Amino acid sequence: METASFITSLATSFSIFCVLLIVYEFLSRQPRNYPVYYAAVRLSTGSDPPEPRRPFTWIREAWEASETDIIKLAGLDGAVYLSLFETSLKILGCTAIFCLPVLIPLSATSHNYNTLNTSSSSTNGSTVNGSHKFSALGNLTVIRGPSFGGFDRFAMGNISDHDRNRIWAFLVGSYWLSVVTYVILWKKYKHIMTLRSTLLSSTKAQPEDFTVLVHDIPYDKTMTHAQQVDTFFKKLYGESYERCLVVMKLKKTSKFWKELEKFKEKLTLSEARFLSSKTKAKPEGIRPQHRTQFFGLFGSKVDSIDYFREKIKDLVARLEAEQSRVRIKEQEGAAFVFFNNRITAAAAAQAMHAPSGRTWRTMPAPQPKDVVWENVLIPFYERLIRQAVVYLIVFLTVLFYMIPVAFISAVTSWNNLEIAFPFMKTIGKVGPLHAILQAYLPQLALSGFLALLPTFLKFLSKLEGLFSKSHLIRATAGKYFYFVIFNVFLGVTLGTTLFNSLKRLKGNLSFDSVVQLLGSSLPPAASFFITYISLKLFVGYGLELSRIFPLLFYHSKKKFMRKFMNKPEQELKEASNPGPFKYHRNVPNDMLVLTIALCYAVIAPMVLPFAMLYFGIGWLVLRNQALKVYVPSYDSKGCLWPHIHVRILVALLVSQLTMLGYFTIKRFVYTFLLLPLPIATLMFGYLCQNIFYHPFKVTPLETASREVKEMPSIQEIVRDYTPTCLLEEDNIHDDVEKSETEK
Amino acid sequence: METASFITSLATSFSIFCVLLIVYEFLSRQPRNYPVYYAAVRLSTGSDPPEPRRPFTWIREAWEASETDIIKLAGLDGAVYLSLFETSLKILGCTAIFCLPVLIPLSATSHNYNTLNTSSSSTNGSTVNGSHKFSALGNLTVIRGPSFGGFDRFAMGNISDHDRNRIWAFLVGSYWLSVVTYVILWKKYKHIMTLRSTLLSSTKAQPEDFTVLVHDIPYDKTMTHAQQVDTFFKKLYGESYERCLVVMKLKKTSKFWKELEKFKEKLTLSEARFLSSKTKAKPEGIRPQHRTQFFGLFGSKVDSIDYFREKIKDLVARLEAEQSRVRIKEQEGAAFVFFNNRITAAAAAQAMHAPSGRTWRTMPAPQPKDVVWENVLIPFYERLIRQAVVYLIVFLTVLFYMIPVAFISAVTSWNNLEIAFPFMKTIGKVGPLHAILQAYLPQLALSGFLALLPTFLKFLSKLEGLFSKSHLIRATAGKYFYFVIFNVFLGVTLGTTLFNSLKRLKGNLSFDSVVQLLGSSLPPAASFFITYISLKLFVGYGLELSRIFPLLFYHSKKKFMRKFMNKPEQELKEASNPGPFKYHRNVPNDMLVLTIALCYAVIAPMVLPFAMLYFGIGWLVLRNQALKVYVPSYDSKGCLWPHIHVRILVALLVSQLTMLGYFTIKRFVYTFLLLPLPIATLMFGYLCQNIFYHPFKVTPLETASREVKEMPSIQEIVRDYTPTCLLEEDNIHDDVEKSETEK
Repeated sequence: METASFITSLATSFSIFCVLLIVYEFLSRQPRNYPVYYAAVRLSTGSDPPEPRRPFTWIREAWEASETDIIKLAGLDGAVYLSLFETSLKILGCTAIFCLPVLIPLSATSHNYNTLNTSSSSTNGSTVNGSHKFSALGNLTVIRGPSFGGFDRFAMGNISDHDRNRIWAFLVGSYWLSVVTYVILWKKYKHIMTLRSTLLSSTKAQPEDFTVLVHDIPYDKTMTHAQQVDTFFKKLYGESYERCLVVMKLKKTSKFWKELEKFKEKLTLSEARFLSSKTKAKPEGIRPQHRTQFFGLFGSKVDSIDYFREKIKDLVARLEAEQSRVRIKEQEGAAFVFFNNRITAAAAAQAMHAPSGRTWRTMPAPQPKDVVWENVLIPFYERLIRQAVVYLIVFLTVLFYMIPVAFISAVTSWNNLEIAFPFMKTIGKVGPLHAILQAYLPQLALSGFLALLPTFLKFLSKLEGLFSKSHLIRATAGKYFYFVIFNVFLGVTLGTTLFNSLKRLKGNLSFDSVVQLLGSSLPPAASFFITYISLKLFVGYGLELSRIFPLLFYHSKKKFMRKFMNKPEQELKEASNPGPFKYHRNVPNDMLVLTIALCYAVIAPMVLPFAMLYFGIGWLVLRNQALKVYVPSYDSKGCLWPHIHVRILVALLVSQLTMLGYFTIKRFVYTFLLLPLPIATLMFGYLCQNIFYHPFKVTPLETASREVKEMPSIQEIVRDYTPTCLLEEDNIHDDVEKSETEK
Repeated sequence: METASFITSLATSFSIFCVLLIVYEFLSRQPRNYPVYYAAVRLSTGSDPPEPRRPFTWIREAWEASETDIIKLAGLDGAVYLSLFETSLKILGCTAIFCLPVLIPLSATSHNYNTLNTSSSSTNGSTVNGSHKFSALGNLTVIRGPSFGGFDRFAMGNISDHDRNRIWAFLVGSYWLSVVTYVILWKKYKHIMTLRSTLLSSTKAQPEDFTVLVHDIPYDKTMTHAQQVDTFFKKLYGESYERCLVVMKLKKTSKFWKELEKFKEKLTLSEARFLSSKTKAKPEGIRPQHRTQFFGLFGSKVDSIDYFREKIKDLVARLEAEQSRVRIKEQEGAAFVFFNNRITAAAAAQAMHAPSGRTWRTMPAPQPKDVVWENVLIPFYERLIRQAVVYLIVFLTVLFYMIPVAFISAVTSWNNLEIAFPFMKTIGKVGPLHAILQAYLPQLALSGFLALLPTFLKFLSKLEGLFSKSHLIRATAGKYFYFVIFNVFLGVTLGTTLFNSLKRLKGNLSFDSVVQLLGSSLPPAASFFITYISLKLFVGYGLELSRIFPLLFYHSKKKFMRKFMNKPEQELKEASNPGPFKYHRNVPNDMLVLTIALCYAVIAPMVLPFAMLYFGIGWLVLRNQALKVYVPSYDSKGCLWPHIHVRILVALLVSQLTMLGYFTIKRFVYTFLLLPLPIATLMFGYLCQNIFYHPFKVTPLETASREVKEMPSIQEIVRDYTPTCLLEEDNIHDDVEKSETEK
């Protein structure tokens, strides 16, 4: 990429960011926008934020908020997500301490590219199979532009292969990067483990602390599943066992329930209409009427209020009949088991109960709202088959998405577009426009292309049969991460090189050749990624903070609901609930930036400041969002961290392998000195897994043994875990009776 | 190998076997050899075997013994080891049902080798880099002899590459082999799980059922470790917790103990000598005397009995002082924790106790005699480092032993020996001798070379810091298995091919090329392995059954002890104790045979009958040994099976990859149809791991909840787990006092 278009792209991104900042300042002050900008505040305090606000107060507030505040408002999951930013910032910052002041001067004072440029311009970028030793790089002109421009001078590529003394410094840099990462990750894991432990041993006990999820209960024709569970657990746990709640097939019940809710809503609407028709002129009002068939267009006309009341009465009866049927007939092989103390529940969740691992499997119960009901009752073998099928699909997706990605990144590059669409040439003549388009087009195409995927992967993860929504989100994030690394990072890096080398590689896809390929494609992709990061940084966080799209969506929805549906104020409030962070979308994207930064930290340290800016601004903006906007509905209590931790290590591993490749390309004789690094990463990963992973899966007994001061009654716990459509409909009865007496 | 030398080798092996059988019949009838041939019988019944025995009764007895008998005498571990033979026999038998009647006729009626032989003999085995497509095979003449001889005609190699219809049958064979293996392994795993479950839930409870091993107890300066454990477990388990036994550093105590034992022995000896000197002529006897320094050669003369009594008294006092010191001062961070019921013990062994996985780790306690005391107290990080170092050493050993193995198998082949030592040529002229030497030399060299290794690997496994001897044995077997597969199987198979192709492969060690290499080296190695198996079979099991070496050893030891050391009869009995099976040596060797059989089952089905004979005769002989000879001192309750199961699957995987390679070499277009097989093996392995593995690591709660009718008291349990040198020396006091009063 040429220096001019590079700078233009940065400047554009930055100005968009500034505009969005000002837009945020302006819009967030208007009380009618509060539901969009202060959803979490309104939900936690029940009131609007304090009025007189100086400009950019949010920065101070986000900066000053303590971790406890974050946990209170965004849950431990939110705090863990923000930890990803802190950790990345720390790792990159500490790396920069060495890389920026040492490695950049070393590169800048070398002259390798000058020599290469001369020879490269003489061959004019067409040495496809030339004997020139940089011919592999020469083929990358599509991304890089015709010559080694501005930034490339500050990268390791500018060091001549013969200048071994300088290359040693880069080797030290690789070690420094790895050690820094280990130390910071270790401390962070420990810290988050403590946070989780504190949360789990809180004196205010939660329903899930007393609950264990049992699944794959074997079939027994002499007893119902509920009786089985009672017998089994009473024998093992005696007095500590309270009762169980067997999971049921609720398709029909839930259908009745939804219908009932719909009619109740319609009744409210009709009553409101009737009320508003009672004017002074006509004090008796007009009772609303409607036709019963085909969207109220055909059929006989009926009195709406009476009709709906009748329907509700009828449905309540049917629902109750269905509820009692279901409770006996539709029991499935999974149950929530409730204990009266935390220690036994924690022990029961960890113990193996039956001699075969196929039956009576237990695990700590997810929070009530976290349960994926339709998955809990999937039988053992079906779950295994689903897993296998899903993994196969994901594997194929990850593998074969590479083709369109590489295609897009090649096609949307300006040079190729000009060839395909000659009219673009005339656009290209408008100076700055040309620069902007050249910089942004490939990135925009890439981002657009990727936006579709997480939803698909989430769907797959649900199909896999996971028991909790939080696990589902993690599984999606995991799949998306590997996709992103394999397709975006490797896809773009190898990009066009691959096309040209494919023939050379064919039938010869060995470890060695892949490492070499990786190394040879890296340096020219650095400026591409700097542009990519700054786009995500300035535009992405600008949009995140200003929430322009959610704002537009909210206002139009509100208008629509108020005008056509006459919804009460309460529902309007709910409509503005932004839900929790979209972890499955965000985490892999942030991890991609971290991977890029780790891979280029030593080879092209100029990536570091941009990546640090990404995580710094991201940290500020997302802290603000965590404090004021997003509202979590459930909390996995930090289970996201092991997931993130492993993926940071994968990123480090990729970066170490990349460096191995790049040093090999540089014909550095002591490259083998880098070999201990990937091994060290694997060992570090094993160590952390050994020490920290298990406490994130279960509750350690010591943690569970802390004194409880405030605990829910067993009735409350059971009620929390009972699906809504199974709850006794006392309030419905009340409603109907009340309105009947009114009438 | 030529047909003549092949048949000679088989005949020789078989005649050795017959001779050894007769030797066994003869020797085992003499009562003075009973301690060698009936050690287990004498130990379990306390008496010699019933006298009048018809020839070969042992075969009927071994055949008719039930699994319960085996478990009673050889423990579940012994039964599991014999299961390896049953399973292998079943797998190979079922495979043979298809392979022998279908595949052998298909090969025998083909004529590929005829054609090849003609062209091969014309090029005279020297086409090292010729354009001939079988040139890779041509290089293997060192092992195979100059032409494709007898057995090779019954192998897949004899099918022409163009004869696709016949090759399809071999593809079906591969699927048949895999499916048969899955079904049999599945059933066996289930069966052994049931056996283990029955054993664990036996109404006669064992000390280890109530015991949990806690290690990595954190340091706390306010309390001793014993107090810590008491506080910690009492809080969590209340009434169920009984007491704990902290592991101590016992180096000095154990030294005193050994010294004491030595002096006690010497005292007994002196007293016996004194007693025997009381002849009628001299009724007062001669009190034995000895010098005190340097093996009784220097120093003043003392009365032996008085001197030893004095020493013992002194040592007992010192031992007791040391014992009380050690109990307080030398407590280490590991302890055995005793509960008063099996359920709590089983639950405590499985639960995670502390918030960090680094401290308070628990596991089911090994049997008292199974504990490796010096390893239990190794701190967490030291254990990790030891593991890493040991794995590194093992990795290097496995990798670089290949060089001498390949060297030996090349050097000891007859042709090469003749070149190196011209005088061998004259020996070679003696017809049968030449054939025998040609057949046996490489195998003997190989076996001798391998016999050294298990001891070394066992030493390494102990260094690794494993807690129980049974685990140590398994770890050794695991290491040795991978060594054997990598070095013997792959080493011999690839053998000389590798040397020739090394240059071609260098820097190009991709998956593809390895698979191809594997495939191309296989068929000529088949007859080598048939000879290898029959040698192990006839000579190995002949020696195992006849126990000639242990017999010689026993008698010379007995003679020596009786003559020079005047040991009592009791100790002589102990000297004949053959201990348990040498699992760490045997399992990998049996697994090697199975791996060979699985790899060649389809390609060269003639291997099958020999392998079946190996496992059939092995089963009979080892059942006999399990019933009459070997005496286990501890039992891991079947933990050997998951280990064997995984390794059978590894063998299957190797065989599937081999077939992939061989079908590729055969230029079979539908080879890709074999790709699902390795994936299926991995998935099957995952499934079994998921269902069966965990119950072998811990005791499921349901199993532990069966009623106990006979249980040891807590004092007995604690006493069982107390190291001998810490036991109160009541009996010593008695001894000394008694002899003093006598005096």
